Amino acid sequence: MDFTFDWSRAARTGLPEAVLCSAKSSTQLAEILAAARARGARLLLTRLEPAAFAALDEPARTGLDYDPLSRTAVLGGEVALSEARIAVVAAGTSDLPVAREAVRTLAFSGQGARLVADVGVAGLWRLMERIEDIRACRVVIAVAGMEGALFSVLGGLVAAPVIAVPTSIGYGVAEGGKAALTSALASCAPGVVAVNIDNGFGAACAALKMLGPAAMGEG
Amino acid sequence: MDFTFDWSRAARTGLPEAVLCSAKSSTQLAEILAAARARGARLLLTRLEPAAFAALDEPARTGLDYDPLSRTAVLGGEVALSEARIAVVAAGTSDLPVAREAVRTLAFSGQGARLVADVGVAGLWRLMERIEDIRACRVVIAVAGMEGALFSVLGGLVAAPVIAVPTSIGYGVAEGGKAALTSALASCAPGVVAVNIDNGFGAACAALKMLGPAAMGEG
Amino acid sequence: MDFTFDWSRAARTGLPEAVLCSAKSSTQLAEILAAARARGARLLLTRLEPAAFAALDEPARTGLDYDPLSRTAVLGGEVALSEARIAVVAAGTSDLPVAREAVRTLAFSGQGARLVADVGVAGLWRLMERIEDIRACRVVIAVAGMEGALFSVLGGLVAAPVIAVPTSIGYGVAEGGKAALTSALASCAPGVVAVNIDNGFGAACAALKMLGPAAMGEG
Amino acid sequence: MDFTFDWSRAARTGLPEAVLCSAKSSTQLAEILAAARARGARLLLTRLEPAAFAALDEPARTGLDYDPLSRTAVLGGEVALSEARIAVVAAGTSDLPVAREAVRTLAFSGQGARLVADVGVAGLWRLMERIEDIRACRVVIAVAGMEGALFSVLGGLVAAPVIAVPTSIGYGVAEGGKAALTSALASCAPGVVAVNIDNGFGAACAALKMLGPAAMGEG
Amino acid sequence: MDFTFDWSRAARTGLPEAVLCSAKSSTQLAEILAAARARGARLLLTRLEPAAFAALDEPARTGLDYDPLSRTAVLGGEVALSEARIAVVAAGTSDLPVAREAVRTLAFSGQGARLVADVGVAGLWRLMERIEDIRACRVVIAVAGMEGALFSVLGGLVAAPVIAVPTSIGYGVAEGGKAALTSALASCAPGVVAVNIDNGFGAACAALKMLGPAAMGEG
Amino acid sequence: MDFTFDWSRAARTGLPEAVLCSAKSSTQLAEILAAARARGARLLLTRLEPAAFAALDEPARTGLDYDPLSRTAVLGGEVALSEARIAVVAAGTSDLPVAREAVRTLAFSGQGARLVADVGVAGLWRLMERIEDIRACRVVIAVAGMEGALFSVLGGLVAAPVIAVPTSIGYGVAEGGKAALTSALASCAPGVVAVNIDNGFGAACAALKMLGPAAMGEG
Amino acid sequence: MDFTFDWSRAARTGLPEAVLCSAKSSTQLAEILAAARARGARLLLTRLEPAAFAALDEPARTGLDYDPLSRTAVLGGEVALSEARIAVVAAGTSDLPVAREAVRTLAFSGQGARLVADVGVAGLWRLMERIEDIRACRVVIAVAGMEGALFSVLGGLVAAPVIAVPTSIGYGVAEGGKAALTSALASCAPGVVAVNIDNGFGAACAALKMLGPAAMGEG
Amino acid sequence: MDFTFDWSRAARTGLPEAVLCSAKSSTQLAEILAAARARGARLLLTRLEPAAFAALDEPARTGLDYDPLSRTAVLGGEVALSEARIAVVAAGTSDLPVAREAVRTLAFSGQGARLVADVGVAGLWRLMERIEDIRACRVVIAVAGMEGALFSVLGGLVAAPVIAVPTSIGYGVAEGGKAALTSALASCAPGVVAVNIDNGFGAACAALKMLGPAAMGEG
Repeated sequence: MDFTFDWSRAARTGLPEAVLCSAKSSTQLAEILAAARARGARLLLTRLEPAAFAALDEPARTGLDYDPLSRTAVLGGEVALSEARIAVVAAGTSDLPVAREAVRTLAFSGQGARLVADVGVAGLWRLMERIEDIRACRVVIAVAGMEGALFSVLGGLVAAPVIAVPTSIGYGVAEGGKAALTSALASCAPGVVAVNIDNGFGAACAALKMLGPAAMGEG
Repeated sequence: MDFTFDWSRAARTGLPEAVLCSAKSSTQLAEILAAARARGARLLLTRLEPAAFAALDEPARTGLDYDPLSRTAVLGGEVALSEARIAVVAAGTSDLPVAREAVRTLAFSGQGARLVADVGVAGLWRLMERIEDIRACRVVIAVAGMEGALFSVLGGLVAAPVIAVPTSIGYGVAEGGKAALTSALASCAPGVVAVNIDNGFGAACAALKMLGPAAMGEG
Repeated sequence: MDFTFDWSRAARTGLPEAVLCSAKSSTQLAEILAAARARGARLLLTRLEPAAFAALDEPARTGLDYDPLSRTAVLGGEVALSEARIAVVAAGTSDLPVAREAVRTLAFSGQGARLVADVGVAGLWRLMERIEDIRACRVVIAVAGMEGALFSVLGGLVAAPVIAVPTSIGYGVAEGGKAALTSALASCAPGVVAVNIDNGFGAACAALKMLGPAAMGEG
Repeated sequence: MDFTFDWSRAARTGLPEAVLCSAKSSTQLAEILAAARARGARLLLTRLEPAAFAALDEPARTGLDYDPLSRTAVLGGEVALSEARIAVVAAGTSDLPVAREAVRTLAFSGQGARLVADVGVAGLWRLMERIEDIRACRVVIAVAGMEGALFSVLGGLVAAPVIAVPTSIGYGVAEGGKAALTSALASCAPGVVAVNIDNGFGAACAALKMLGPAAMGEG
Repeated sequence: MDFTFDWSRAARTGLPEAVLCSAKSSTQLAEILAAARARGARLLLTRLEPAAFAALDEPARTGLDYDPLSRTAVLGGEVALSEARIAVVAAGTSDLPVAREAVRTLAFSGQGARLVADVGVAGLWRLMERIEDIRACRVVIAVAGMEGALFSVLGGLVAAPVIAVPTSIGYGVAEGGKAALTSALASCAPGVVAVNIDNGFGAACAALKMLGPAAMGEG
Repeated sequence: MDFTFDWSRAARTGLPEAVLCSAKSSTQLAEILAAARARGARLLLTRLEPAAFAALDEPARTGLDYDPLSRTAVLGGEVALSEARIAVVAAGTSDLPVAREAVRTLAFSGQGARLVADVGVAGLWRLMERIEDIRACRVVIAVAGMEGALFSVLGGLVAAPVIAVPTSIGYGVAEGGKAALTSALASCAPGVVAVNIDNGFGAACAALKMLGPAAMGEG
Repeated sequence: MDFTFDWSRAARTGLPEAVLCSAKSSTQLAEILAAARARGARLLLTRLEPAAFAALDEPARTGLDYDPLSRTAVLGGEVALSEARIAVVAAGTSDLPVAREAVRTLAFSGQGARLVADVGVAGLWRLMERIEDIRACRVVIAVAGMEGALFSVLGGLVAAPVIAVPTSIGYGVAEGGKAALTSALASCAPGVVAVNIDNGFGAACAALKMLGPAAMGEG
Repeated sequence: MDFTFDWSRAARTGLPEAVLCSAKSSTQLAEILAAARARGARLLLTRLEPAAFAALDEPARTGLDYDPLSRTAVLGGEVALSEARIAVVAAGTSDLPVAREAVRTLAFSGQGARLVADVGVAGLWRLMERIEDIRACRVVIAVAGMEGALFSVLGGLVAAPVIAVPTSIGYGVAEGGKAALTSALASCAPGVVAVNIDNGFGAACAALKMLGPAAMGEG
């Protein structure tokens, strides 16, 4: 194989070096990891299913910090975390894998995050109990599946930008996450923006960009 | 024309005699009205656009109580209203035509209703200010377009059944009302039920059925 | 894990404490069950696949009443059942799992139900033979896949509210249940309301709300 | 213009010479009519809106038998009708334009038809009152919009083939006729076949083919 | 279990007793087969996957004539076949399972069929070589996936009614059979009718109805 | 206004300078035309509705060669046409506006074209009569709406590349051209390529590119 | 009418007071304007079509600064603009109305903006000529219809967050803006976020939130 | 089995003999291979999954050159390759299987190809480094998933025809390849044509046709 990694991305856009693993073979992943090691580069791997991680051979796996819940792996070790200026708010327990993908992406870039979970709007008091914690952050990442009502409720309660991450949690009309996605885009609360379904990584990248060059330099 | 009206519907199902006017010609509507007058029957007309009402000839229009906002007309006069046991809750000003179609259908059957408007979740305090009024009712009809987050928030706050009426208010992904409809169906708040987009009439019929035979007998 | 269960839901909305299991890990489910046991709370688990039930460890499974057909489990034992005021009507044998999820949810709350099965409209005489049994109930839950014609036929025959539960039974254009769902929403019989595809639990919750506070208090 | 009419179609397939007018200009229609007159051919025009008919010049309109309800026109005069062996069953008043397109197409080919209207399943007794009339026919064309439950109910009641014509009558999820179409295709009653939405002409053509060569020879 | 089979269907509609197996458990299927044997009824089983057939216990399987290609089984033995008056035309090798489901359904009812395979329109000469064989039949069942162009080409070449059976063969925009289905419904050749995707059984039922009562009496 | 026209496009890609007019105001179009005149550039305008053409003021319209059928206008006069090496094949009369947009775009670049119309596959003999004319060309542009079966039939008959242009002609499932588009993409005849619905201009551009630099130099 | 304006929104979320006019009647708009004047509040009106503006009576229109291109009106006069820290980048001339809605919303809140137009990726040199101007901004709003390739190209070139605003410019598969929207959400360039189709207002609100409280305080 | 292979396709259309394996059984494939061997014909097999290849028996597999990445097999050995006149450009590593299907199809017909990989537009410099190599070719096949922005960028940079092959790489709104497909069809760069999702074979066939009879004669 003869691939061309976009090594200048970090310099150009301030974002972490990352590889989407879902449609890549073990051989391809091993080559990418070897190339990163050869350059001494840190690397974030996303959508690396437990079975795919297990299928990597020993040299490829060495030194990878793998988290099965979020299906992410980090090559090159941790960095010190900044104080948390980003809230990651998850509607339900089932949304935690995506929320955690965002948290791990932020940590890869040195950003701490405040995780607020189980605050779905069907029991509004849970969200209200945590709202001041959320308001203290400069960016809010909201993670929700099913009907995604959390996005609008949050959007109306905080001054920070709200990045909606619809998840594929749900069944019937909610299957695949389209219902939550359309709720994010059609939100009656102005200032809510959306990323693709289950895209915790992308939401974290957007949050990093919103914090600005200083924040990204910390990564 | 030689149509067969379902005159026994009221007896069989307890629902009002009603005619959906949108795809019927002036001639067809005039014949239906004449047949109702000949039987001395009261009749509710829905989706009667102002232009279609104006196109009816004088005999057809005589004695019709027409409301352009809800596009409904009543033949046969008003009946006394019961105390309001049904709340009709509308998210925004643009949802009022559909909300009013529900209110007028209930009134046709003798049921008073409590209309609560402009309580969209982007400004949650407005809903919370009115929530006790809503909780006092036995059935709640919730009317909302765009992302329809109101349905889930209400469903989590009240013990009464919540009938969601998605409206076609919105643009882009919300155009036509599909986004609000999927929010109603995918709601994380159990016990929310849905009717078709913009179907204020159907929601009112369902509410009448929920109040039970006594209520319908009052119509 | 550190989740926030909505323990006040029953008090606020009258509905059973329930957990949707489909996207939760064994670990997450075990923690939820332990928390419920610690509070002495009864709990209903839905969409718990046989494999997921089998994957629970012994302490988690102890005392769970599991039903593989409906994929539901009950923690905390049975309660006495009221006389049946709710009919659960299923079009075909394949719709029974969803119908049974509704019956089990009602039973969890102390409500008996009348199950009427195999009354699809292709053989209309079967429904007509049972129609008086159905008419005797105060709420009707109708469960059907494929084209969902049962919803409209029932809606025209009974005075009780009809809650349509479309099922994902079918193939081709009916795959996933969208055909049955649109039939429910577009029904020519006014007063039919719909819940999400395969959502027997939600239909039961709505039925409980329709019976009113007294019924819910019995749960 | 220099078009190539398929004059041999009748000989090859037994179907009437027909022109779909909706996307053709007045000039194009006038040329087609002139060519038919030059050959002494009879011709059926479908989807000829009143405004498009009015826009034809005098020579083009001469001798056209135009029916605004069904938006059809016949060039070349009537033929004697056979006894009715085809039933055209319409669910509601709003479905009559499509039903009438079928009846007019059959008449153009010399086939009488039995029109049965206003027999939607929300008031099932209306259909049952007419069912023997329908059973006496060799082919049934069923015309319905909204949720199209009529197709399955009819399919389970008659031995003749049922050709379902979904109509674009309805709003919300039923808008455009997709809901009725999927009901026809997903019908639990075997032996129901479907044509395109609002395609009364195509249903009549299929019915003619089902009656067989003798019937078509009468056209 | 306590199911209500529609034993009067054959008498009422002339169609074979049949059971759609795809969403039924082994237990349910065994009970249905036992009930049929108890009545001495013949029975056709469709969509019985090889694994589901293998999962039936010995008593349930005894005397079943199972065909894995079409996934059909017959209980009650063969009947003598009439001369073939129905052509079953399949575009490609991959469409044969569905074509064979139609052929087996016809045979169950005593109707012979002429199977014409591998005549996709990309090599039109293959169809033209067989066209006279097809024209000799009174009904044509056309089976095709991908873009389904065969339906229109056949519809323009034969006088018999053409029943289009779209198949789920294809990928990308053709995945699931929607592309072939819309081609059938939108066909420029009048007189083509459609059944659901992969519904060889339904097409055969429609063909039986088209041949009329005499043919069905032979089954 | 201060727009930046891509004047180097012709040099870079060999394609004509063209402006899509549908969403531009009269003022914007007038400024674009003035800029082109100032440079002495030839310009092709597409999707210029008759009303939009009429709304242009006198200076803007001067010297425009406008064709209402194809809704195209040419600024800068005609060029000599090459011998026709491209066939433009239209299924029906209603497809002529799109076919003509392709012919006019080719003519703007100096390429003659052979227009073959009214050869829809429902009457296959019409296409077979013209097939040798089509086979003599180096590129084939096929224009069809409804089910678009023409694309596959042509693709199987000619050695030249076939560029499918689905049109928005049709109703019901064919409305908007999606049915014809999926037929083009799912074609069982390899080597068929597709452009957007109604995009005669794009098909002509692709054909110019296929003829190669020499052809484009003639424009 | 008796509506409840969310007057505390600005304090709570930092966003401008705004009214979406598209589904409101002249009477409703007049009442809203009167209420704002009574409070001395500034107000932004969006989606106010020229015909709707013309339909307002004199008192309602007085003092409104109306811009027909962006269909926005401002009540309460201009405020001084900050230096431009937000770039609004439009792919084509047809995207200018949406781009301008964003610029006007920013101006209402006192934020200057840098408008960069006609930089669609089909002529990449145009974007590259302006890229340094864009890179100098802290937030980028990208406005594009058709296939929306601009979003990914920009996302890969700048360090600032990119808010994608898909527009409804396009036809065929691009009609209504869904193609551009999916391009924004599926972007291979991480850190791109999206708002609803044609939602220039929402993009501006998100940009204001990203600049942070200081910026919003200037509004 | 008794299938009719289209052996004259090569002569008629210049394209390779090929078999789509995905929905065929091992038995069917073995028969097709035996028939080809009996005629001494070369044959290309596409979409032959590794498991399906492994399931072939020894005689069927003998002499097959199988490539698991592209899931293609060649019967009949290699032919000498022409100089590369076709560029196959792949956006990412995950798109290589489809790109390689195209390269292998071209090689089967004797055409060399220039493979350019990892040039997605998020890092535009990678594409610009290779653009002259691509410009040197007479046809460009572009392979991309996710949002497919590569198609438009390439279309604006090269004079050769660009055949877009959308791939099913992506998740959420990009799942299945529809997002990339609509980008190809809606491209703002004229002259881009599209084939079905993942259809590397079809793109290669179209490229062969574009090179013309001479090129195909080399196969």
